[in-house]
Amino acid sequence: MLQQLFDPSAIAIIGASDDIRRPGGYPLHALTANGYRGLVYPVNPRRAEINGKPCYPSVRSLPGPCDLAIVGVPAANVPAAIEDCGSAGIPFAIVLSAGFREIGAKGMALQAELDGAIRRSGVRVVGPNCLGVLALPPRMYAGFGALFRNPDWPRGPIAMISQSGGFAYSILSSCQEAGLGVDYVVSTGNEAGLGMLDFVEHFLADDGVRLIVLYVEGLADGRRLRALGTRALEARKPIAVWKVGNTGAGSRAAVSHTANLTEEYDFYRDAFAEGGFVEVREIYDLIDCAKAFGARRLPQGRRVAIVTTSGGAGVLLADRCEEAGLTIPALAPESVAKLGALVPDFASLANPVDLTAALAQTEQPFTAAMHHVIEDANVDLAILRSYPGRDVDAWTDHLVAYAAASPKPLLVSLSGTQRQSAAWAPRLEAAGVPCFETPSGAVSAAAMLCAFAEKTRRAVPAREPSRSTARVELERPAGAAALNEEKAKQWLERYGVRAPRRVFVRIDAPLPALDLSFPAVVKVVSPDVPHKTEAGGVRVGVERAGLEGTLKELAANVLRYQPQARIEGFIVEEQARGVEIIVGALANPSFGPLVLVGMGGIQAELFRDVARRYAPVDAATAREMVLRLKGARLLQGYRGAPPCDLDALCDVITRVSWMIADHEAWIAEIEINPLIVGVSGHGALAADAVVRFR
Amino acid sequence: MLQQLFDPSAIAIIGASDDIRRPGGYPLHALTANGYRGLVYPVNPRRAEINGKPCYPSVRSLPGPCDLAIVGVPAANVPAAIEDCGSAGIPFAIVLSAGFREIGAKGMALQAELDGAIRRSGVRVVGPNCLGVLALPPRMYAGFGALFRNPDWPRGPIAMISQSGGFAYSILSSCQEAGLGVDYVVSTGNEAGLGMLDFVEHFLADDGVRLIVLYVEGLADGRRLRALGTRALEARKPIAVWKVGNTGAGSRAAVSHTANLTEEYDFYRDAFAEGGFVEVREIYDLIDCAKAFGARRLPQGRRVAIVTTSGGAGVLLADRCEEAGLTIPALAPESVAKLGALVPDFASLANPVDLTAALAQTEQPFTAAMHHVIEDANVDLAILRSYPGRDVDAWTDHLVAYAAASPKPLLVSLSGTQRQSAAWAPRLEAAGVPCFETPSGAVSAAAMLCAFAEKTRRAVPAREPSRSTARVELERPAGAAALNEEKAKQWLERYGVRAPRRVFVRIDAPLPALDLSFPAVVKVVSPDVPHKTEAGGVRVGVERAGLEGTLKELAANVLRYQPQARIEGFIVEEQARGVEIIVGALANPSFGPLVLVGMGGIQAELFRDVARRYAPVDAATAREMVLRLKGARLLQGYRGAPPCDLDALCDVITRVSWMIADHEAWIAEIEINPLIVGVSGHGALAADAVVRFR
Repeated sequence: MLQQLFDPSAIAIIGASDDIRRPGGYPLHALTANGYRGLVYPVNPRRAEINGKPCYPSVRSLPGPCDLAIVGVPAANVPAAIEDCGSAGIPFAIVLSAGFREIGAKGMALQAELDGAIRRSGVRVVGPNCLGVLALPPRMYAGFGALFRNPDWPRGPIAMISQSGGFAYSILSSCQEAGLGVDYVVSTGNEAGLGMLDFVEHFLADDGVRLIVLYVEGLADGRRLRALGTRALEARKPIAVWKVGNTGAGSRAAVSHTANLTEEYDFYRDAFAEGGFVEVREIYDLIDCAKAFGARRLPQGRRVAIVTTSGGAGVLLADRCEEAGLTIPALAPESVAKLGALVPDFASLANPVDLTAALAQTEQPFTAAMHHVIEDANVDLAILRSYPGRDVDAWTDHLVAYAAASPKPLLVSLSGTQRQSAAWAPRLEAAGVPCFETPSGAVSAAAMLCAFAEKTRRAVPAREPSRSTARVELERPAGAAALNEEKAKQWLERYGVRAPRRVFVRIDAPLPALDLSFPAVVKVVSPDVPHKTEAGGVRVGVERAGLEGTLKELAANVLRYQPQARIEGFIVEEQARGVEIIVGALANPSFGPLVLVGMGGIQAELFRDVARRYAPVDAATAREMVLRLKGARLLQGYRGAPPCDLDALCDVITRVSWMIADHEAWIAEIEINPLIVGVSGHGALAADAVVRFR
Repeated sequence: MLQQLFDPSAIAIIGASDDIRRPGGYPLHALTANGYRGLVYPVNPRRAEINGKPCYPSVRSLPGPCDLAIVGVPAANVPAAIEDCGSAGIPFAIVLSAGFREIGAKGMALQAELDGAIRRSGVRVVGPNCLGVLALPPRMYAGFGALFRNPDWPRGPIAMISQSGGFAYSILSSCQEAGLGVDYVVSTGNEAGLGMLDFVEHFLADDGVRLIVLYVEGLADGRRLRALGTRALEARKPIAVWKVGNTGAGSRAAVSHTANLTEEYDFYRDAFAEGGFVEVREIYDLIDCAKAFGARRLPQGRRVAIVTTSGGAGVLLADRCEEAGLTIPALAPESVAKLGALVPDFASLANPVDLTAALAQTEQPFTAAMHHVIEDANVDLAILRSYPGRDVDAWTDHLVAYAAASPKPLLVSLSGTQRQSAAWAPRLEAAGVPCFETPSGAVSAAAMLCAFAEKTRRAVPAREPSRSTARVELERPAGAAALNEEKAKQWLERYGVRAPRRVFVRIDAPLPALDLSFPAVVKVVSPDVPHKTEAGGVRVGVERAGLEGTLKELAANVLRYQPQARIEGFIVEEQARGVEIIVGALANPSFGPLVLVGMGGIQAELFRDVARRYAPVDAATAREMVLRLKGARLLQGYRGAPPCDLDALCDVITRVSWMIADHEAWIAEIEINPLIVGVSGHGALAADAVVRFR
């Protein structure tokens, strides 16, 4: 797809110069100095030759075919240069020049001009305002800045795509120091042509790349991100993603709780959680991630054996494992017996296993002990915290041989300095035993492996569950921005979500006979009053005798609160009993439809106790969502109360998820608040609901 | 206090040997090889000389005074060796030998024997089962293991005390790599004599030590930890504390919510939060902490200016600052104007300030710009993320000069590799400008500085606030483990906490005339039923007419639930209106009395929404506690409701805190659950309460 971009047979440099301080000068120098394996054509109408190379007046006068142009002319000349590339049949261009959208109003016109040139020419453009592309396999240093000044970057099966060119250099430097090679770096700049996800798609298909790393500020196409996440799981190729720009979004209009409870960053996190992504927040995280996945072993579960030569480190590792949701099983009695024969009396054979510093000095028993630990049937992966004893070579040999014989991941946390470990860590890592600088790093790497492995084990691709409810055709009422409570409940009922028995009483009609049980709930129905409770338009515990008076009072309350409100009537409704839950759904134009569940109105809002998934979801996923709530205990028979009807709750979640998925083109939000979940076997009822349109 | 331990004029080695694999052999070698500046006396009755040094049969036959003995004989001989030291007038001993408490039952008798010898002899003992003491000022390598094998540890004003000897080496190695020197390391082992806090007290008084680092598994004396925390604030000397062993405490008896809501680790965290501690969780954290405080500048507030040469790093830094609770103010217009004259058009002068990579290449304008930023009156400290441009020396000179002129902390986050920064970071750090490896590290260091500075600015030492309520003498009823609700409310009333109007109705007396407003709450009073609600012993909304029937029903419920229950009677109580809060207090034997506030029963429990402080507290602290609750918004006029009586709530918290503080010797727990906080001006009422005794 993008092969010619990353391994062009020839590159033209438009705006070539012999001044390496210029964007057209530095790449000419860097490509030559670093031994780029293709041809380089300087293009500059004012020069006949540069640095001994013949110079061409235009890309149309090149002596042979050309796959890529590097554009370093002033911004104003970039659109014409792109059109030239199109005429000359050059399929790709990297635009280093700045002065477009990123400088604000002044650059917008030029950006539009460039967009037009890209459209017309069909040239696929990286940038503008980017630092360029580094591709080590062909030694292509096609850019400028610190990243392109280091001739010694090591090679490795990692591709990095960054929306911050400057930060890419920092990351690469740290990777190099940790012994990690990065074959490809793309600085995407303004993404006028090719965007970050185009590169992700390319590298997912490139067998030479085993880890994709993203430094993301923002993406326009959330659905494509999610689709690529699914593809990454299928390919078992992780995408490490470092998302920044997540806070300080500023105040947004507070339309509903569902919207209030979901921030921009949540859409990303939900996409990361469902697909083949590993979220990192730190350079260290990223290095730990690259090391963990570089070993190409995935655990079958999350049961960790901790092996140390110091009790203190074992305590620390156990803390971190528990925090990370990893389990620390007891070893099987057979393993304990075998270990007992090898280690000193004062060693601890519980998990964490402390083999003692004394044993670490005796390579053979030590690695034999390691062997017994990881072969234990209770163990899915092991973390070893140790110093390699006195005979480092023998120690390393044993671990290498042992790793070759077991498919279970073994992660080593170094004690001692980087300098010391430089002598042996590379050999272990080449054998599939990653070495981490800190105990916490080893644990967080283990957690990344476990989470990714679990996602690949799920019924992938779980792009869409099978329908649990039939599609229902709904028709948007002309001119309305939202449905009133009664209408919203009717739509939900058509999707199989139950609401309490109720009667709608028109304001201008006499009170009908009511076949309802009392006490009841009474609510004003008005298109102008979205927050009925605040307006004094709701009363609970109303007896039949007091009904007529209550209707008058509520109407008066609402008119006092909002004198212009049009009151259509009242809902008189049986009072449901149970635990209050909020079930919401919204359709994000970029990421797609999403369903949400949370504890009651106040608890969801104050404690952010909500779980979200992209819609539709099946009942199993709905149950996972519910059980993730901190308040889930309230539903499971809290303090002697009978357990609630979880099945009914999960059924509502799936039905709402299908309702938003079926109609996301025009329904913006659905909210049931509260859904009253009764005692097990008694169902769940939507006590209030709203549906809003785009 | 411990001067002779850390700088002895002579050291005896009991069990001296020329075999460096033995605990009595290695220190003899290490002291000599590393140039220890005092005298060394080998002691071994079976040798006349070792390594050319005369050997003494016993410490009683030494030729001169001796301050310290290193004990490396087999465990069984250790108690006698300690008695010998006592007879010989040697005040300190380091016991390296293992085989005591740490090996379980087998070692307990020997440990008791050792404890006796320590008591009788008066010798102050480090260990046993420790790795020893490293003191670089006198070049004293008094121990064994990896820590004592490195002759090149750099000196620096840090003292580390570790309950894990093995891990101390890892930490020291990482410090060394980061350019940090550690003058003292103590491995405390079993702490039979001297404990971790003895060393803290010593180093707090040592002017050569500016940062104390603790690696803690557990401490017996929480009050002393807290007292030392206060002293650290007074001395403005931070104690970095790395606490491990915090999870998997296992199930504990669930007596009350207050106890359930407080785990062992919470006592430590509360102590760390109030005193001069900085909690770290990672080697990196510790290094960041040491660098931050090593610069000896504390900020006046938490307003951070972020300066970068790359927009991407600025976004990341802003995210992290917001997460860490730091603020990112706009710069003053004057500063923006000055900056505008210096930087290119496309630089961003909002905060984060992006000076652009171009400017970074021009040292003079760059540092001038830095100067304008940090001199801004809106700014308390600055974080600079940058590469030092081409002329590193000039760049460094400028920053050094500028730092010398300003008292505000400047933290630098390096871009590029450690190797590159090794050339200039040490110069900056020597000038008080710490350099951090990652942007996140710089932010977390900034947050540590701000939090510590805030604690020193508080009215220190706030050891005990002035009394807000008089001490009331209370008398523990003989034989009772707890007070019933009625009695607990009476005690609280004596401390000035109000409860609703109520009448106690004895079970065997006729129903009296009740001067109460209805509907009321009715509750069974029984010493045998601590969980009245679960037993069906509570009813709300009882009308006067239905009272007699309700009493019968409740009694029947309780007897069904617990047939042997002794029912003393009923409380008939006016129904309070307001927000439900839990206020609790408990007296921890180690750490002292503590007061707690949380949202309602369920919310505190499910969402852990509680705030704790050691008691007593004043009203200002109580208010801080309340405002830290996530649910605090419910009290401040949530969704149009009138605000609650915060003053009354705070008053209750302070009164309960005094009640536990006054009687902590015998009251174990006080709990008001719920406290009903009414609308502003209407007070707060204890609707239920319990007092439990030790």
